[in-house]
Amino acid sequence: MDDRVNLAEKLALLEGPYEPGIVAYINDYKVAVVKVAGEFIWHSHADTDDFFLVLGGRLTIELRDRDVELGPGELFVVPRGVEHCPKSAEGAEVLLIEPRGTLNTGDAGGEMTRGEREV
Amino acid sequence: MDDRVNLAEKLALLEGPYEPGIVAYINDYKVAVVKVAGEFIWHSHADTDDFFLVLGGRLTIELRDRDVELGPGELFVVPRGVEHCPKSAEGAEVLLIEPRGTLNTGDAGGEMTRGEREV
Repeated sequence: MDDRVNLAEKLALLEGPYEPGIVAYINDYKVAVVKVAGEFIWHSHADTDDFFLVLGGRLTIELRDRDVELGPGELFVVPRGVEHCPKSAEGAEVLLIEPRGTLNTGDAGGEMTRGEREV
Repeated sequence: MDDRVNLAEKLALLEGPYEPGIVAYINDYKVAVVKVAGEFIWHSHADTDDFFLVLGGRLTIELRDRDVELGPGELFVVPRGVEHCPKSAEGAEVLLIEPRGTLNTGDAGGEMTRGEREV
Protein backbone atom coordinates (compact mmCIF):
# COMPACT_ATOMS: atom_id res chain seq x y z
CA MET A 1 0.00 0.00 0.00
CA ASP A 2 1.76 3.14 -1.26
CA ASP A 3 1.31 6.11 1.02
CA ARG A 4 0.32 8.43 -1.82
CA VAL A 5 -3.06 7.19 -3.00
CA ASN A 6 -4.65 7.74 -6.41
CA LEU A 7 -8.31 6.90 -5.92
CA ALA A 8 -9.03 6.10 -9.59
CA GLU A 9 -6.17 3.62 -9.64
CA LYS A 10 -7.46 1.97 -6.49
CA LEU A 11 -11.02 1.78 -7.81
CA ALA A 12 -9.72 0.03 -10.93
CA LEU A 13 -8.42 -2.78 -8.71
CA LEU A 14 -11.83 -3.65 -7.28
CA GLU A 15 -13.49 -6.75 -8.72
CA GLY A 16 -17.10 -5.80 -8.35
CA PRO A 17 -19.66 -3.80 -6.43
CA TYR A 18 -19.83 -3.85 -2.64
CA GLU A 19 -16.27 -5.13 -2.35
CA PRO A 20 -14.58 -2.31 -0.41
CA GLY A 21 -10.83 -1.91 -0.48
CA ILE A 22 -8.93 -0.01 2.20
CA VAL A 23 -6.56 2.60 0.77
CA ALA A 24 -5.35 4.44 3.89
CA TYR A 25 -5.73 4.82 7.63
CA ILE A 26 -6.26 7.87 9.79
CA ASN A 27 -5.33 6.79 13.30
CA ASP A 28 -7.84 4.02 14.08
CA TYR A 29 -10.04 4.84 11.09
CA LYS A 30 -9.98 3.15 7.70
CA VAL A 31 -10.39 4.99 4.39
CA ALA A 32 -11.83 2.73 1.68
CA VAL A 33 -13.11 2.91 -1.87
CA VAL A 34 -16.08 0.90 -3.07
CA LYS A 35 -18.15 0.53 -6.20
CA VAL A 36 -21.89 0.63 -5.72
CA ALA A 37 -24.32 -0.97 -8.19
CA GLY A 38 -27.87 -1.97 -7.44
CA GLU A 39 -29.12 -2.08 -3.89
CA PHE A 40 -27.11 -2.98 -0.78
CA ILE A 41 -28.96 -4.03 2.37
CA TRP A 42 -30.66 -2.12 5.15
CA HIS A 43 -28.38 -1.90 8.16
CA SER A 44 -27.12 0.44 10.84
CA HIS A 45 -24.00 0.87 12.95
CA ALA A 46 -24.78 1.21 16.64
CA ASP A 47 -21.36 2.60 17.56
CA THR A 48 -20.31 4.87 14.71
CA ASP A 49 -21.28 7.43 12.14
CA ASP A 50 -20.82 6.31 8.53
CA PHE A 51 -19.15 8.65 5.98
CA PHE A 52 -19.89 8.54 2.23
CA LEU A 53 -18.21 10.78 -0.38
CA VAL A 54 -19.23 10.23 -4.00
CA LEU A 55 -16.28 10.23 -6.41
CA GLY A 56 -18.23 9.30 -9.55
CA GLY A 57 -21.72 8.33 -10.64
CA ARG A 58 -24.79 8.85 -8.52
CA LEU A 59 -25.52 7.34 -5.11
CA THR A 60 -28.79 7.16 -3.24
CA ILE A 61 -28.69 6.57 0.49
CA GLU A 62 -32.13 5.43 1.49
CA LEU A 63 -33.13 6.37 5.01
CA ARG A 64 -36.41 5.26 6.58
CA ASP A 65 -37.92 8.74 6.19
CA ARG A 66 -36.23 10.06 3.01
CA ASP A 67 -33.69 9.44 0.28
CA VAL A 68 -30.38 11.31 0.14
CA GLU A 69 -29.22 11.77 -3.46
CA LEU A 70 -25.51 12.39 -4.00
CA GLY A 71 -23.40 13.14 -7.07
CA PRO A 72 -19.65 13.62 -7.49
CA GLY A 73 -18.14 15.89 -4.85
CA GLU A 74 -21.06 15.42 -2.46
CA LEU A 75 -20.89 13.73 0.91
CA PHE A 76 -23.24 12.56 3.61
CA VAL A 77 -22.64 11.22 7.10
CA VAL A 78 -25.21 8.68 8.32
CA PRO A 79 -25.49 9.21 12.07
CA ARG A 80 -24.79 6.24 14.32
CA GLY A 81 -27.78 4.00 14.85
CA VAL A 82 -29.65 5.27 11.79
CA GLU A 83 -30.85 2.61 9.38
CA HIS A 84 -29.74 3.14 5.81
CA CYS A 85 -29.49 1.34 2.50
CA PRO A 86 -27.09 2.54 -0.22
CA LYS A 87 -28.11 1.94 -3.80
CA SER A 88 -27.28 3.13 -7.30
CA ALA A 89 -29.12 2.45 -10.55
CA GLU A 90 -26.34 3.75 -12.82
CA GLY A 91 -23.42 2.85 -10.57
CA ALA A 92 -21.31 4.95 -8.25
CA GLU A 93 -17.76 5.13 -6.92
CA VAL A 94 -17.58 6.06 -3.28
CA LEU A 95 -15.04 6.91 -0.58
CA LEU A 96 -15.92 5.49 2.84
CA ILE A 97 -14.48 6.37 6.23
CA GLU A 98 -15.27 4.37 9.36
CA PRO A 99 -13.44 3.11 12.43
CA ARG A 100 -11.32 0.03 11.77
CA GLY A 101 -13.31 -3.09 12.53
CA THR A 102 -16.63 -1.61 11.36
CA LEU A 103 -18.56 -4.26 9.42
CA ASN A 104 -19.83 -3.16 6.01
CA THR A 105 -23.20 -4.72 6.79
CA GLY A 106 -23.35 -3.32 10.34
CA ASP A 107 -25.95 -5.03 12.50
CA ALA A 108 -27.50 -6.87 9.56
CA GLY A 109 -24.68 -9.28 8.67
CA GLY A 110 -25.47 -11.78 5.93
CA GLU A 111 -23.97 -12.74 2.61
CA MET A 112 -22.91 -9.23 1.59
CA THR A 113 -20.56 -8.98 4.58
CA ARG A 114 -16.92 -8.55 3.57
CA GLY A 115 -13.77 -8.71 5.64
CA GLU A 116 -11.33 -5.83 5.73
CA ARG A 117 -8.67 -5.89 3.03
CA GLU A 118 -6.29 -3.36 1.55
CA VAL A 119 -6.03 -2.59 -2.14
CA MET B 1 -25.04 23.14 8.29
CA ASP B 2 -27.07 20.96 5.93
CA ASP B 3 -26.39 17.26 6.33
CA ARG B 4 -25.95 16.70 2.60
CA VAL B 5 -22.73 18.48 1.67
CA ASN B 6 -21.72 19.75 -1.75
CA LEU B 7 -18.00 20.41 -1.50
CA ALA B 8 -17.84 22.93 -4.35
CA GLU B 9 -20.58 25.00 -2.71
CA LYS B 10 -18.73 24.92 0.59
CA LEU B 11 -15.41 25.89 -1.01
CA ALA B 12 -17.11 28.90 -2.59
CA LEU B 13 -17.92 30.18 0.90
CA LEU B 14 -14.30 30.38 2.00
CA GLU B 15 -12.77 33.84 2.05
CA GLY B 16 -9.19 32.99 1.35
CA PRO B 17 -6.43 30.43 1.58
CA TYR B 18 -5.67 28.61 4.81
CA GLU B 19 -9.08 29.42 6.26
CA PRO B 20 -10.56 25.94 6.78
CA GLY B 21 -14.28 25.46 7.11
CA ILE B 22 -15.81 22.41 8.77
CA VAL B 23 -18.49 20.75 6.64
CA ALA B 24 -19.28 17.56 8.57
CA TYR B 25 -18.32 15.40 11.52
CA ILE B 26 -17.58 11.69 11.77
CA ASN B 27 -17.90 10.85 15.45
CA ASP B 28 -15.19 12.98 17.08
CA TYR B 29 -13.51 13.84 13.79
CA LYS B 30 -14.03 16.99 11.72
CA VAL B 31 -14.24 17.05 7.93
CA ALA B 32 -13.15 20.41 6.52
CA VAL B 33 -12.46 22.07 3.20
CA VAL B 34 -9.63 24.50 2.69
CA LYS B 35 -8.06 26.48 -0.13
CA VAL B 36 -4.31 26.32 -0.35
CA ALA B 37 -2.23 29.03 -2.05
CA GLY B 38 1.41 29.66 -1.48
CA GLU B 39 3.22 28.07 1.42
CA PHE B 40 1.76 27.23 4.83
CA ILE B 41 4.14 26.66 7.74
CA TRP B 42 6.17 23.70 8.90
CA HIS B 43 4.38 21.91 11.71
CA SER B 44 3.47 18.50 13.06
CA HIS B 45 0.72 16.95 15.14
CA ALA B 46 2.05 14.86 17.99
CA ASP B 47 -1.22 13.07 18.64
CA THR B 48 -2.81 12.46 15.26
CA ASP B 49 -2.38 11.55 11.63
CA ASP B 50 -3.37 14.29 9.17
CA PHE B 51 -5.50 13.44 6.10
CA PHE B 52 -5.35 15.44 2.83
CA LEU B 53 -7.52 14.71 -0.24
CA VAL B 54 -7.06 17.03 -3.22
CA LEU B 55 -10.35 18.10 -4.81
CA GLY B 56 -8.90 20.54 -7.34
CA GLY B 57 -5.58 22.06 -8.36
CA ARG B 58 -2.23 20.70 -7.28
CA LEU B 59 -0.92 20.36 -3.73
CA THR B 60 2.61 19.72 -2.55
CA ILE B 61 3.12 18.39 0.94
CA GLU B 62 6.72 19.02 1.82
CA LEU B 63 8.24 16.51 4.19
CA ARG B 64 11.77 16.82 5.56
CA ASP B 65 13.04 14.05 3.27
CA ARG B 66 10.83 14.43 0.17
CA ASP B 67 7.91 16.21 -1.45
CA VAL B 68 4.54 14.51 -1.96
CA GLU B 69 2.80 15.84 -5.09
CA LEU B 70 -0.96 15.43 -5.27
CA GLY B 71 -3.56 16.20 -7.93
CA PRO B 72 -7.35 15.84 -7.93
CA GLY B 73 -8.51 12.49 -6.57
CA GLU B 74 -5.25 11.85 -4.76
CA LEU B 75 -4.80 11.63 -1.02
CA PHE B 76 -2.01 11.41 1.51
CA VAL B 77 -1.98 10.82 5.24
CA VAL B 78 0.83 12.53 7.13
CA PRO B 79 1.68 10.22 10.02
CA ARG B 80 1.46 11.66 13.51
CA GLY B 81 4.59 13.46 14.60
CA VAL B 82 5.91 13.95 11.08
CA GLU B 83 6.84 17.52 10.15
CA HIS B 84 5.14 18.75 7.01
CA CYS B 85 4.45 21.95 5.12
CA PRO B 86 1.60 22.15 2.58
CA LYS B 87 2.07 24.48 -0.36
CA SER B 88 0.67 25.17 -3.80
CA ALA B 89 1.98 27.44 -6.52
CA GLU B 90 -1.17 27.34 -8.68
CA GLY B 91 -3.67 26.86 -5.85
CA ALA B 92 -5.47 23.80 -4.57
CA GLU B 93 -8.77 22.84 -2.96
CA VAL B 94 -8.40 20.22 -0.29
CA LEU B 95 -10.51 18.04 1.99
CA LEU B 96 -9.05 17.62 5.49
CA ILE B 97 -9.97 15.11 8.18
CA GLU B 98 -8.61 15.35 11.71
CA PRO B 99 -9.87 14.83 15.25
CA ARG B 100 -11.93 17.73 16.56
CA GLY B 101 -9.73 20.14 18.41
CA THR B 102 -6.72 19.59 16.17
CA LEU B 103 -5.00 22.92 15.53
CA ASN B 104 -4.33 23.70 11.87
CA THR B 105 -0.83 24.81 12.76
CA GLY B 106 -0.17 21.87 15.09
CA ASP B 107 2.81 22.37 17.37
CA ALA B 108 3.95 25.50 15.53
CA GLY B 109 1.13 27.91 16.39
CA GLY B 110 1.55 31.47 15.17
CA GLU B 111 -0.39 33.88 13.04
CA MET B 112 -1.75 31.30 10.60
CA THR B 113 -3.59 29.50 13.41
CA ARG B 114 -7.35 29.47 12.91
CA GLY B 115 -10.14 28.46 15.27
CA GLU B 116 -12.65 25.80 14.29
CA ARG B 117 -15.67 27.08 12.42
CA GLU B 118 -18.35 25.52 10.29
CA VAL B 119 -19.27 26.68 6.80
